[in-house]
Amino acid sequence: MNLRTPGPTPMPPQVAAALSQPMINHRGPEFAELLAEVTTGIQDAFQTQLDVLLLTSSGTGGLEAAVANLFSPGDRVLAIIIGNFGERFATIAERYGLDVQRITFPNGHAADPQVVADRLAADPAVAAVLVTHNETSTGVTNDLQAIAGAVRDKGPLLLVDGVSSAGSLEIKTDEWRVDVLVSASQKGWMVPPGLAMVSVSPRAWEAHQRAMLPRYYWDFTYARKEAARGQTPFTPTITVLYGFREAMHMLRTEGFPAVFERHRQIGTYTRAGLDKLGLRLVPVEERTASNTVTAFWLPQGTDEKAFLETLRVQYDIVLAGGQGELAGQIARIGHMGLVTQADIDQVFGALREVLATQPVARS
Amino acid sequence: MNLRTPGPTPMPPQVAAALSQPMINHRGPEFAELLAEVTTGIQDAFQTQLDVLLLTSSGTGGLEAAVANLFSPGDRVLAIIIGNFGERFATIAERYGLDVQRITFPNGHAADPQVVADRLAADPAVAAVLVTHNETSTGVTNDLQAIAGAVRDKGPLLLVDGVSSAGSLEIKTDEWRVDVLVSASQKGWMVPPGLAMVSVSPRAWEAHQRAMLPRYYWDFTYARKEAARGQTPFTPTITVLYGFREAMHMLRTEGFPAVFERHRQIGTYTRAGLDKLGLRLVPVEERTASNTVTAFWLPQGTDEKAFLETLRVQYDIVLAGGQGELAGQIARIGHMGLVTQADIDQVFGALREVLATQPVARS
Repeated sequence: MNLRTPGPTPMPPQVAAALSQPMINHRGPEFAELLAEVTTGIQDAFQTQLDVLLLTSSGTGGLEAAVANLFSPGDRVLAIIIGNFGERFATIAERYGLDVQRITFPNGHAADPQVVADRLAADPAVAAVLVTHNETSTGVTNDLQAIAGAVRDKGPLLLVDGVSSAGSLEIKTDEWRVDVLVSASQKGWMVPPGLAMVSVSPRAWEAHQRAMLPRYYWDFTYARKEAARGQTPFTPTITVLYGFREAMHMLRTEGFPAVFERHRQIGTYTRAGLDKLGLRLVPVEERTASNTVTAFWLPQGTDEKAFLETLRVQYDIVLAGGQGELAGQIARIGHMGLVTQADIDQVFGALREVLATQPVARS
Repeated sequence: MNLRTPGPTPMPPQVAAALSQPMINHRGPEFAELLAEVTTGIQDAFQTQLDVLLLTSSGTGGLEAAVANLFSPGDRVLAIIIGNFGERFATIAERYGLDVQRITFPNGHAADPQVVADRLAADPAVAAVLVTHNETSTGVTNDLQAIAGAVRDKGPLLLVDGVSSAGSLEIKTDEWRVDVLVSASQKGWMVPPGLAMVSVSPRAWEAHQRAMLPRYYWDFTYARKEAARGQTPFTPTITVLYGFREAMHMLRTEGFPAVFERHRQIGTYTRAGLDKLGLRLVPVEERTASNTVTAFWLPQGTDEKAFLETLRVQYDIVLAGGQGELAGQIARIGHMGLVTQADIDQVFGALREVLATQPVARS
């Protein structure tokens, strides 16, 4: 199967094999080594010296942990929204009783850092900015460095959803002063789902001390205390960590600069190919088009479900459809982690045939 | 390695092999089949027709989900505590701002159902009873049927931590009217950690409608809605589900009545052997001694860390030590899931040698 969803992503054989290793005591020395090795690798990918905490959950759990650990009811946050996952981050904050101010940009567009800067200048009560680095629902990557520049030295914390970017696209966590960065195992890391990774800056730790929102499973204090002795507060997803150790070995051998460049190349290649096929991309600017996932508009009259089903059944290719208000209108090709030009070529070949000949038009 | 911690537990080879299966789209038909198969099996083990929701987290996440989904701040709950995990369930409820009333029984003792009945009769404001079925920290199993009888028809909901019991010890969820039952994959299910399973009764769904505590990742409404179309709200731990499908196939082929009987036998065998070795059990009554984990007191002067380390390094046997106030005083042998009398005999042999000859006494 050519699994081209934007997560879960395919695993290299070494990672798949590593998953079958026997269970170990999560309070023993073997686990401490495993945790240290994976954590150090994530710090390398995040370009950070900060604490990195590992949580057994999806990436959304990591976003919820960030909210529950840093705020009190009524705290004002500015949510930068360029698609479905930005909306999700804002919704989590609302569910926890925060005063959520939204800046929403149209689908296909990245956030304008100047607009963010202006909003922050006009509203000194904002305690934090929530932003999606790579919006998986539209295939648009925000200019995180510029947004971080707009936030920096103005007071608010910067919380970044890097679920589908960290480890595949460059994020200079320390240099850009990202206070919380959240990622998840099933993206460019080439590891099965089940683990969220969260970095926490000193300013975020300070906010955490004052934060009154309820939490137990997500509690950062508990997680840091246990990490210091090579453990996690609760039984962790050992199997996913086995895979992560193997994938991390591969990624660090390649080197993260090379990993980022590889993603830039496959992203560029995918967009160029779709363009040749006459398909229109969702991202309106090449500059902010994502190098981990590409979204394109389905030709007028295409039935999304029939289209995806034809690709799956007849070509063994799995793409993702649209989410939220884009449901039924777009398709998305994941190209993070384990992917070759040949994998993408296969998608192109199938698209060429299906869009030309299949009965995909709505009846 | 003879992994005899009370979770994670060893995996059968078929389960280990199943973990390496290629990733799939968690929004596709293969996943819907996987989810249905595992969910149906859990309903079988739980002896329930209720909704069973699967959460990507440890068992503690499942307990937190139960609290966050059913209550509002200030709601009064009665926490029955017979050890560390009972205390954890109460602590979670406190962190979420509930009015937690505790009934605590001494280590080694089970809860007295009559005491529970009396407390409920005296306090009609109690909205729910929280109880640990099998207390992993002391190796004591509460008489859940009797406790359920004390709670039933009095109004409060009954929330049960069945993390280390469900699937290994009998729980008649529907017949006993358990409103929420929580378990976790890494126990007698013979599956790696990463998945919590939660059953929810109609009365619990009613409470959920009124519950104001903040939640997003744990939200039962969202989970039920997605389960109805063969999905989970957030990317699930697919790998653990692969293992679960295989383990469930084995368990259902054996039949849960036989699985429960097998645990009764190995529990009895373990206690009898420790008794022969002159070791005193933590549970004070055979009737309430756990059939999934056995805790015994270390002989006077034993250094717990040196003792466990000797077993691990020289005998390749991993036991667990004490938790909370029992730290340093006891050791625990897990015998849930994949375990034979030969595995337990090996532990006995090592214990005989180590306790007789090793320099385990405190200096």
